[in-house]
Amino acid sequence: IQTKLPAVGTTIFTVMSALAAEKGAVNLGQGFPDFDCDPRLVDAVTEAMQRGFNQYPPMTGVPALREAIAAKIERLHGRRYDPASEITVTAGATQAIITAILAVVRPGDEVIVLEPCYDSYVPNIELAGGTVVRVPLTPGTFRPDFGKIAAALTPRTRAILINTPHNPSATVWTREDMLALQELLAPTEVLLISDEVYEHMVFDAQEHQSAARFPGLAARAFIVSSFGKTYHVTGWKVGYVAAPPTLTTEFRKVHQFNVFTVNTPVQHGLARYMADPAPYLELPAFYQRKRDLFREGLQRTRFKLLPSEGSYFQCVDISAVSDLGEADFCQWLTAEIGVAAIPLSAFYGDGFDQRVVRFCFAKKDETLRTALDRLARL
Amino acid sequence: IQTKLPAVGTTIFTVMSALAAEKGAVNLGQGFPDFDCDPRLVDAVTEAMQRGFNQYPPMTGVPALREAIAAKIERLHGRRYDPASEITVTAGATQAIITAILAVVRPGDEVIVLEPCYDSYVPNIELAGGTVVRVPLTPGTFRPDFGKIAAALTPRTRAILINTPHNPSATVWTREDMLALQELLAPTEVLLISDEVYEHMVFDAQEHQSAARFPGLAARAFIVSSFGKTYHVTGWKVGYVAAPPTLTTEFRKVHQFNVFTVNTPVQHGLARYMADPAPYLELPAFYQRKRDLFREGLQRTRFKLLPSEGSYFQCVDISAVSDLGEADFCQWLTAEIGVAAIPLSAFYGDGFDQRVVRFCFAKKDETLRTALDRLARL
Ligand SMILES: CSCCC(=O)C(=O)O
Ligand SMILES: CSCCC(=O)C(=O)O
Repeated sequence: IQTKLPAVGTTIFTVMSALAAEKGAVNLGQGFPDFDCDPRLVDAVTEAMQRGFNQYPPMTGVPALREAIAAKIERLHGRRYDPASEITVTAGATQAIITAILAVVRPGDEVIVLEPCYDSYVPNIELAGGTVVRVPLTPGTFRPDFGKIAAALTPRTRAILINTPHNPSATVWTREDMLALQELLAPTEVLLISDEVYEHMVFDAQEHQSAARFPGLAARAFIVSSFGKTYHVTGWKVGYVAAPPTLTTEFRKVHQFNVFTVNTPVQHGLARYMADPAPYLELPAFYQRKRDLFREGLQRTRFKLLPSEGSYFQCVDISAVSDLGEADFCQWLTAEIGVAAIPLSAFYGDGFDQRVVRFCFAKKDETLRTALDRLARL
Repeated sequence: IQTKLPAVGTTIFTVMSALAAEKGAVNLGQGFPDFDCDPRLVDAVTEAMQRGFNQYPPMTGVPALREAIAAKIERLHGRRYDPASEITVTAGATQAIITAILAVVRPGDEVIVLEPCYDSYVPNIELAGGTVVRVPLTPGTFRPDFGKIAAALTPRTRAILINTPHNPSATVWTREDMLALQELLAPTEVLLISDEVYEHMVFDAQEHQSAARFPGLAARAFIVSSFGKTYHVTGWKVGYVAAPPTLTTEFRKVHQFNVFTVNTPVQHGLARYMADPAPYLELPAFYQRKRDLFREGLQRTRFKLLPSEGSYFQCVDISAVSDLGEADFCQWLTAEIGVAAIPLSAFYGDGFDQRVVRFCFAKKDETLRTALDRLARL
């Protein structure tokens, strides 16, 4: 068979997790916790199964979960989304993003991505027949460069994809950033896809600036988030999209013919669990402590630490540690030192080598300590 | 926003289930059981959650589940698929089908569908930029017409989609049908997408003729199935695709950037549950009894029964009962008689009115009896 997608390989997260398993390395590569979720959440899903919630839910999601999502957004960001016409439950954030793209990007449309970016965005846009327009974040700081974004806008621009807190750089967009984007897009009809899956992991008294807070952005935005990151259940694959009715209508046209709907008992369990806001309200402090533990340990290595303002990632500059390219360095680090990391080049179309690698600190303290001991040897 | 998909409405299954709920009708429309799954299956998933299987599984699926799928196919159809390179777990059969299409159909490629067909196929092909080539099944009998299929093949044909047991017509392809298809495709490079989600519901000592049994088909086929139908858990949204390594490689390129992977504890639970083949081996008899009960009751109505050789559907000709078009008839039947059904026109691009509607008999006996009592009034 002649391949349609010659440029697409296996996602870096699968490659590095397989290598980590093979080498018995501590896996700080792919982003997922190595500790378990709240047993109350497991109980809530179990009870839903036992009560017989095992058949198709509504295509758009279980009503109680859509209501819980709307309540959470309103509480945190002051915007009320209508669960019936503006919230859709998805099979994770990745599925929400590809569905939004397939729903609105027509062949030949341009879609702006800010590099480095998550590795599904570009193949998603290409599958829709769109043209990817790559705008670099500011080298070194990874902050948005609105001059460059402005210069990339054309009459063919259909959408822009942003991500805050940012994977892989762990930067967080400020209120001023969001206002600048709002102003920039005001005279256009450009749509916004706002990937906010790390929304509850923002540190040092900064606040997550959801697109939901900015009326000029919210009116044109698919806001995407995920329960996997927030509730330590990355394997459950449930997320959501919040978008105004016109955008939600388009989204659901594709959603219904992609996955149709999402696991029923998990939706019921999440709906019940979300009644208590404590778990997500406590998450920033939970992860800030892990970040601090991990950063403190890294101070004893020769890595140069970049800021980690949000997400569960910590990037480091490897220049003082190794002459290897960052991709080769990650292979070597996994195989020889026993710690897996992700090279930043995996988030760039041209494999641009920043001399930077990404660690995930969503791990038990003892896992972080084991990794730190190994890294201290470098 | 200017819509990209002006022709796409809300899937008929959602529309009719909503109407059935609103009118308090017995819902024999959308295909799902109103009885529960085996409690052992619930226990197996619960145990997986409690044991901490809540983070990302491998992108391709939990190894034990891929192995169980391979073992089942080998047992039933005598072909050994390699779980590592030929089996991928999906978020249901619909997601498997769109992923296969996005992975291989290039803009301008032609894809043959046999009408009537499931309502996701055509929008899936159009999202990939493919050209839909509709070939009618034989009117009245819904059997494949290989002369018409042969005439539809062109050098641009990339794939053909088949579905046996067939939704909505409840026909089952024979060994001779599959051999005819194999012979027809032999001189071509046309790929096959074989939707076999009702594989375990074949009646009257007929056998399901999976594409896996025919080497000339299997070598070019994405074989798609679903656990939702087989194990009475349509809301769990887990299915799979079996395909040769080259096709699986292409499939996974898209899969990883569509849903990435599928609910971990459900995969573990299914893997354990599948160790016992009894549940799927007993399924034909289970549904044949329901079919017989339902058909017997329908004999007392003025509907003309079509054969139901497989699936959990029963089609009837409404000509002697009503002058309404079949779509209007289903609305009326739901609202006034209190029984929801699906018009066959929903499975045709041009809304072709066959005077036929589809009932789902995957219901408790008492539900079927209530529906039959209401239908007997007609
Ligand atoms: C879908 S696997 C990747 C998980 C993740 O978000 C990351 O590691 O960046
Ligand atoms: C995804 S809802 C439709 C269920 C089904 O397969 C049918 O009713 O035909």
